[in-house]
Amino acid sequence: MNLDSPLQPPAGARAVHVTEHRGHGGALQRSDWLAEEVPVALVFNGISHAVMMASPQDLEDFALGFGLTEGLLLSPGELHGVEVLPVGDDPHMAQGIEVQMAVSSACAWRLKGRRRSLEGRTGCGLCGTDSLADACRAVPTPTPRSVAPQALALAMASLRDWQPLQQLTGATHAAAFCDLDGAVQLVREDVGRHNALDKLVGAMVRARLAPDTGFIAISSRASYEMVHKTAMAGVSVLAAVSAPTARAVDTALAAGIALAGFVRGQDCVAYTHPERLHPEGIGLHTP
Amino acid sequence: MNLDSPLQPPAGARAVHVTEHRGHGGALQRSDWLAEEVPVALVFNGISHAVMMASPQDLEDFALGFGLTEGLLLSPGELHGVEVLPVGDDPHMAQGIEVQMAVSSACAWRLKGRRRSLEGRTGCGLCGTDSLADACRAVPTPTPRSVAPQALALAMASLRDWQPLQQLTGATHAAAFCDLDGAVQLVREDVGRHNALDKLVGAMVRARLAPDTGFIAISSRASYEMVHKTAMAGVSVLAAVSAPTARAVDTALAAGIALAGFVRGQDCVAYTHPERLHPEGIGLHTP
Repeated sequence: MNLDSPLQPPAGARAVHVTEHRGHGGALQRSDWLAEEVPVALVFNGISHAVMMASPQDLEDFALGFGLTEGLLLSPGELHGVEVLPVGDDPHMAQGIEVQMAVSSACAWRLKGRRRSLEGRTGCGLCGTDSLADACRAVPTPTPRSVAPQALALAMASLRDWQPLQQLTGATHAAAFCDLDGAVQLVREDVGRHNALDKLVGAMVRARLAPDTGFIAISSRASYEMVHKTAMAGVSVLAAVSAPTARAVDTALAAGIALAGFVRGQDCVAYTHPERLHPEGIGLHTP
Repeated sequence: MNLDSPLQPPAGARAVHVTEHRGHGGALQRSDWLAEEVPVALVFNGISHAVMMASPQDLEDFALGFGLTEGLLLSPGELHGVEVLPVGDDPHMAQGIEVQMAVSSACAWRLKGRRRSLEGRTGCGLCGTDSLADACRAVPTPTPRSVAPQALALAMASLRDWQPLQQLTGATHAAAFCDLDGAVQLVREDVGRHNALDKLVGAMVRARLAPDTGFIAISSRASYEMVHKTAMAGVSVLAAVSAPTARAVDTALAAGIALAGFVRGQDCVAYTHPERLHPEGIGLHTP
């Protein structure tokens, strides 16, 4: 996290000067990198649906992924175009970014059925409903795949090399799509873990990666929305570096998702479908 | 995190059976604790304003703290009463919890000026605005205090002992109010970091702790909303165990908040107002 690092600053990072205190020693003036956190308005056919605090890169992926995992787009073809428009003059204190989406009229009708014009912060997954009944929606059941713990370990071990923003700033999460042997295929980063996952889902669709050819690995905890979005993306295995919540486990059971937590080193904990997370599970075969 | 632990399960935890894989070894069946994650509807005078995914304990604190830090309540006296009502039959798969708040008519009018009926997930800080201009609101300037890095280190070192839910589940964050010497006064936990902070602010008000007599320590990163809520609570120093975002630093500068990140062991990094985070800063004196 030193400014003198030979790394080029990736999109979404800003340099600042800080004062570092070392125990029993004095204070050190040095440079540091911060992750940008920007209000991003998702605008469908001219109507603002949600404002999220997010990292400002890969917003075309974000628009597509958010639309799909939130069930606003039923297929990628319903998104006809995306335009990313910064709002405000000062690039550092920009008022925000508008992501203008042109969507099908069927999608526009669907949006009318939901409350619109909502705001989320960096951790916010979904905005758009107004009742407890709507808060946890129905979840699809992806085609089940099996993955060996060794593949999860391999994916997590290499994930760090795919996180330039996290390496510079320490403030972002990553979501990765990995093949069933644990080789990382695609990664997206964001200050919000659910935004990283939405960006990944959008990028997977744009790269034409079939969701039943791998699993998703995340650098964060697994909350409800992470499991829900994984199911909406059609992926049947989710591996998290930290703990799941109880509702995440309930949702994984309902969606037939094999959920692994505390994937660290060679260890992991299977919270659902342990029969699909075993050493013989490696490879492309279904159980 | 073993079920055989002598610890009583705190509110907000649930026992499950899991399969643990140890590298190069076999699989182990054991018990584990999960953190509950429940949709909580915040209802003002009968009208639902927001639904947040949250830990189900300390919801009276949450209601008061959320109302104050979001500027919906201008003073604690505007909240006349709180009732917590579980919705649904199965305690584990409960549809959610309604927090019914009786508020002043002035507060009710204020709510009408904002969009209502919103949903947030575990990481979601604020819902209720529909435009980029509203996404980052004006921030008050608390009375400035100074804190020594040693006091921050002391607070962080003792914070773990105040986190029974995190010790059991590994899935929750904590927010603590500490006096200027670093002694922890109050802690609240939640699956969402901003919810933990809102619960803390509500608990501080109910315990009549003056916000200018200490600082807030959080077990998470410092995003924009964490700094904004700290300022709204009237606290002038925020210490985070991990990184701040760029917007968090901007907001701390605007609010006159001394923001420390990466508070680990005896080390920390001052991102704003380093003159108020120095070894001589200890104690109650103002700069």
